[in-house]
Amino acid sequence: MKNPAIIGQSIPRLDAPSKVTGKAIYTDDMKLPGMLYGKLLRSPLAHARIKRIDVSKAKALPGVKDVIVGADTPGVKYGNWRLVPQSQDELPLAVDKVRFVGDEVAAVCALDPETAEKALGLIEVEYEELPAILSVEEATAEGAGLIHQESKGNVSLVRKIDYGDLDQMFAKADYVREDTFRVHPVQHAYMEPCSSLAQTEEGNRVTLWTSTQTPYIVQCLLASTLGLPENNVRVMKVQIGGGFGGKMELRPWEFCAAFMSLRTGRPVKFTLTRHDELAYGRRRHPMTIYSKVGFKKDGMLLAKDFQVMLDGGAYNAMGPTATFLCGTFGNMLYNYPAYRYFGRHVYTNKPPASAMRGFGAPQAAFAAETQMNMAAEELGIDPIDIRLMNAMQTGDVIPDVATISSCGFKESLEEVRRISGWDQKRKNKTPGKGLGIGCFSFISGGVFNWFNTKYNFSAAEVKVFEDGTAQLAVMACDIGQGPDTVLRQILAAELGIPIHKIRLISMDTACTPKADLGTWGSRVTLMNGNAIIEAAGKIKAMLRPVMFSELDLNQIHDLAFEDERVFVRANPKKGMDFAECVYKALRGREGEPLTARGYYTPRNKGLVSPAFSFGAQVAEVAVDQDTGQIQVEKMYTAHDCGVAINKMSVEGQLEGAIQMGLGYALMEDLVMDDQGRTLNTTFLDYKMPAAEDMPPGESVEIETYEPEGPFGAKEAGEGLAIPTAPAISHAVFEAVGYRCMETPITPEKVLRALGKIK
Amino acid sequence: MKNPAIIGQSIPRLDAPSKVTGKAIYTDDMKLPGMLYGKLLRSPLAHARIKRIDVSKAKALPGVKDVIVGADTPGVKYGNWRLVPQSQDELPLAVDKVRFVGDEVAAVCALDPETAEKALGLIEVEYEELPAILSVEEATAEGAGLIHQESKGNVSLVRKIDYGDLDQMFAKADYVREDTFRVHPVQHAYMEPCSSLAQTEEGNRVTLWTSTQTPYIVQCLLASTLGLPENNVRVMKVQIGGGFGGKMELRPWEFCAAFMSLRTGRPVKFTLTRHDELAYGRRRHPMTIYSKVGFKKDGMLLAKDFQVMLDGGAYNAMGPTATFLCGTFGNMLYNYPAYRYFGRHVYTNKPPASAMRGFGAPQAAFAAETQMNMAAEELGIDPIDIRLMNAMQTGDVIPDVATISSCGFKESLEEVRRISGWDQKRKNKTPGKGLGIGCFSFISGGVFNWFNTKYNFSAAEVKVFEDGTAQLAVMACDIGQGPDTVLRQILAAELGIPIHKIRLISMDTACTPKADLGTWGSRVTLMNGNAIIEAAGKIKAMLRPVMFSELDLNQIHDLAFEDERVFVRANPKKGMDFAECVYKALRGREGEPLTARGYYTPRNKGLVSPAFSFGAQVAEVAVDQDTGQIQVEKMYTAHDCGVAINKMSVEGQLEGAIQMGLGYALMEDLVMDDQGRTLNTTFLDYKMPAAEDMPPGESVEIETYEPEGPFGAKEAGEGLAIPTAPAISHAVFEAVGYRCMETPITPEKVLRALGKIK
Repeated sequence: MKNPAIIGQSIPRLDAPSKVTGKAIYTDDMKLPGMLYGKLLRSPLAHARIKRIDVSKAKALPGVKDVIVGADTPGVKYGNWRLVPQSQDELPLAVDKVRFVGDEVAAVCALDPETAEKALGLIEVEYEELPAILSVEEATAEGAGLIHQESKGNVSLVRKIDYGDLDQMFAKADYVREDTFRVHPVQHAYMEPCSSLAQTEEGNRVTLWTSTQTPYIVQCLLASTLGLPENNVRVMKVQIGGGFGGKMELRPWEFCAAFMSLRTGRPVKFTLTRHDELAYGRRRHPMTIYSKVGFKKDGMLLAKDFQVMLDGGAYNAMGPTATFLCGTFGNMLYNYPAYRYFGRHVYTNKPPASAMRGFGAPQAAFAAETQMNMAAEELGIDPIDIRLMNAMQTGDVIPDVATISSCGFKESLEEVRRISGWDQKRKNKTPGKGLGIGCFSFISGGVFNWFNTKYNFSAAEVKVFEDGTAQLAVMACDIGQGPDTVLRQILAAELGIPIHKIRLISMDTACTPKADLGTWGSRVTLMNGNAIIEAAGKIKAMLRPVMFSELDLNQIHDLAFEDERVFVRANPKKGMDFAECVYKALRGREGEPLTARGYYTPRNKGLVSPAFSFGAQVAEVAVDQDTGQIQVEKMYTAHDCGVAINKMSVEGQLEGAIQMGLGYALMEDLVMDDQGRTLNTTFLDYKMPAAEDMPPGESVEIETYEPEGPFGAKEAGEGLAIPTAPAISHAVFEAVGYRCMETPITPEKVLRALGKIK
Repeated sequence: MKNPAIIGQSIPRLDAPSKVTGKAIYTDDMKLPGMLYGKLLRSPLAHARIKRIDVSKAKALPGVKDVIVGADTPGVKYGNWRLVPQSQDELPLAVDKVRFVGDEVAAVCALDPETAEKALGLIEVEYEELPAILSVEEATAEGAGLIHQESKGNVSLVRKIDYGDLDQMFAKADYVREDTFRVHPVQHAYMEPCSSLAQTEEGNRVTLWTSTQTPYIVQCLLASTLGLPENNVRVMKVQIGGGFGGKMELRPWEFCAAFMSLRTGRPVKFTLTRHDELAYGRRRHPMTIYSKVGFKKDGMLLAKDFQVMLDGGAYNAMGPTATFLCGTFGNMLYNYPAYRYFGRHVYTNKPPASAMRGFGAPQAAFAAETQMNMAAEELGIDPIDIRLMNAMQTGDVIPDVATISSCGFKESLEEVRRISGWDQKRKNKTPGKGLGIGCFSFISGGVFNWFNTKYNFSAAEVKVFEDGTAQLAVMACDIGQGPDTVLRQILAAELGIPIHKIRLISMDTACTPKADLGTWGSRVTLMNGNAIIEAAGKIKAMLRPVMFSELDLNQIHDLAFEDERVFVRANPKKGMDFAECVYKALRGREGEPLTARGYYTPRNKGLVSPAFSFGAQVAEVAVDQDTGQIQVEKMYTAHDCGVAINKMSVEGQLEGAIQMGLGYALMEDLVMDDQGRTLNTTFLDYKMPAAEDMPPGESVEIETYEPEGPFGAKEAGEGLAIPTAPAISHAVFEAVGYRCMETPITPEKVLRALGKIK
């Protein structure tokens, strides 16, 4: 299978120049005539009943145009899991109770932001404080208060997986171990804090420019909370300054902008601050993970019992998916004859956790990969060897859940062993230095239809013009991960035209084809790519008759589309310019433009994903035994993303993933006091790795060909964020003997483990 | 043929509330981050060679970001008549010569408008002045200088029509008369002066928000002048503050905004002033019209020789169409056994004339209708009787030119006679008062493909959703004439859903279906309406299978779509909600949305238009014989627009037309000095009728059913602007005996005719 030359090229992202020169327009850059500035009043308490709200003074402040509280709204609950309506537990503004510090209570819009801010201070809210439940242990304790009265307990959702005979397998095992891991919350820390601007039209329609990864989800949920038909809400393209899963739900400021715009007839904009984001924003789930594994003494895996409590915070958000996927990633890398997963999503009085790059997998992998390294250690087997023995491979099946149609995991393990100098370095250990390994598998989009969309999962519309150019319309979102370039590469490959001749129209729920579910779960390249290939195929079918009749071709001939020409594959001289061919086809269509749509929905691909990526990573670290400081000296990565459509983009994803993994492992943490208030709410005290903290890296792409993916491609975005933390943790153990069971791996914990502090 | 109830209703325009409350956003309201303000340097001379331009001082002014002259541009000539490339005679910025006072010479963009204005003053241009040719007589005189060196003479275009044996018919005539009329220039005087804002994307794409009636024409011509593929230019919806034909071409500021945006990488906006518009803007063609007619003594028409010189100003603009249509409107109302038309479009050193409501017809009709009244007078026949005798009727054919498939002209004449009290008032004349008649016919869009589009003349895309709503996408422009409402009525009638459930997406060349030619020639209702009906029919075809299988219907049944239900026409109880039916159909389409496209291009409809409207108007005036002041006391109108889709809209068009006709007849004029400089460039001295000047009116719609039109509809926009001036002129003659042969009809001319002044 030879792909067109443009597949696999390193093409700089087409949006890069406008972003690095500051010309790209984000939502907060937009100003519309008559626009009002919105601000949110948030709860100062983690858990309380609202007894009274008085907004009269705020309303009376000159310049204030509207003030709303929960009682003013239609009171429709929302949440991404439309398939399970009882999981939809959020209101745009609190009505009866507040459930975390930051829960939205009222909104103001005014002629300028200062007046809006001042008005917030004039709103009087009387609360009856309730005990704050700040841990999953408290939340699930006997007699714990209910955070949601409608819920039977504080466990909002349970997910179980169970196959094989667990008891029998554990009985057969030579070696069984049980461990409990705890992982901490971190935040997406996208560069662009959320911003939303709504404008109304004809009194009952809303156009929303908003910082989102999921315009269609926002359209639908905003419509339902406003009590309008979906068609009355239009979500429009803006530049998005990063998302990482943090911008994939309807959020209160989106509702408030739209609702207040309908009430005032004026455009209304809300923009969050960094403080808002860090103090009240979505974050990666903290989890408590109990894992019991059983092996034969040669290292062969027999069984795993994986029990996870996700600290979901005050609302479900995307927690159900994390709960679901966590169980899938507990067993995805290796073949387990028996596996049981019991995941519980638990309400606490904290800001809701939700989707974040990896979606449950970084946590599951931290536990599973660490435990694998512990077992290898105890069994006296090389950690890479024990993995090779149990590794998933192409054709492996998890019944009803997944079929592994391409898998370069073993090759990744071998490659990372080679490039890291694994064997030699382990033989000749340097004190205070160590190599550690972590592995991953990840999805290429989801199959489970939690949003209950009635439309295909992705769609594309392709138009070609007589000037040899094309237009590609997709609802997919580029949130910095590069599909605006990659999707054009796919179309360019199909039509044989250069990418700069393709205009991309994206992310406009009224004008781009219904109904892409958005950017999450690394779905865009595979799902939109497949839709584009289908649409391009229809365009080519429109051009075939022209070629066959103009060139008098025999039916056995096939056509090729390359270098802006259409020609007989067996006789490249016989052909014509692509533009000319389109012109002739257009002339034969009674003035009807050449337009085609393509769609993609995974079918018969199990429950989880149409395709899975794999990879392994080795971290090389040095630990200063006096300070406990951990220096990651090098990261070695080998990974299988199928065919990389744009090598530079994949490298960018890898670098970004290492940066995030590094932060997750060593530096980032949201610190909360005993009242549920987040204490580090600026980038001065929420510490992320910066450019100078990045270790050098070496990486190898294991090229497999994923049959379900466009040109053999699959995931290359989130998966790479998974192995870094367990690899670093393992390397720290190898360096100084400290095994981290509770992230992050701080110098303090190292020193304590070394007995240097108490 | 019974139309659905929504057809013919008076529905207030859906865009009205936002416009009357000041919330509608026009181009000049828009501000983009980093936006630059553009200004144009114009020629102070009517005719000159450019010897030298020095922009160095302007470029050096702090805050100036770019300065361009013609030599900096690709130098591609443009013009709307793409079918005749040599007619494309304009450049965005003058290169060798300037040809009128106001011809664009250079453009500046700067951080603020004041700096841009200041920079204009720093540009040095050295001109070599040439003799200014300011009349068609001078321009066509032997030895006249050439305004365009590339043109053989100053006559840029000739149009001839010739049928029947003219000499034989004149020989048979009992009564022949020859007259020469002169009509003056007037301006559209739309409320919104032109404004254009361009933004670039990826270095080689431009998005343009611009005050235009013809986004597709602007897209194509802008692309060709920039040297880009059409697909790299996107023209986007804004509110348009009136057009009347004055915003249907590519204009220099559109080019300059786009070109300078590409050069600077920043958004660039140009907005004209009222002075710019009045001094340099497009206007209605002044014409010199020679007309010779022959009658039998009973009033039967035999022949007409119609020779017209159009004063086109410095460039062709839409002059070729006016030249073309002027000949068509010279004979459209009456049956002429022989007719000859000789139209010449003449260059002069004046601002270019172009399309303006009526497109050549108000001028032709002023001459033709006045002459008809003169003949009736001399033959002693009632002016209405002589018209009835010769009037066009349904089924009449002008060979190869037009087929009159519906015609309510005779009925209009009878009605206007009745409502005006014509017979009695003419019998009992009051000194100083008079009744006058003028008639019209007009097109419902053009057939002749002067823009040489490869696409259908109109297109529509309809989507229906499971919430019972629909989306209608069209490239058609609402410039105040109401199609945003009327087109939704047409779709609502087809689908049986209310108009407020239809979202309209219009005027976006990237997202609305290719390739509407825009708003001109009263084409929108008929052409887009037909496309919508076709698209809706396809949607209904998608819903039929659901109904027939769900309800187990016999094939002889037919379905009705009314009141948000789909049901068996013969048994209305048997059916289901429209929304439910869409939902079921969607479920059966594997996630593919219900989307359909419809198209319309007139075929086999002659050369001119697919349908013709007709009407008659009687003006009742009082003339003060001491002051010469003319008071129009009442206007009586009867007209045939086929089926009026929205009666209120038609009334609005009629009122607006009377206002424009009144201004044309009595008040408006562009006064020029002998250097070609327009002297009245504010609304204080360019006098238009205001609300208080409007005469009361009475009107009757003669309902015919136009078989080519949607639900029987045809033109109701421009035609009504035609008869007012000749009707008033005739009434003035009846009142005081002054017959105007040279418009406007001023008090001065009346007094001179009465011998009261010299």
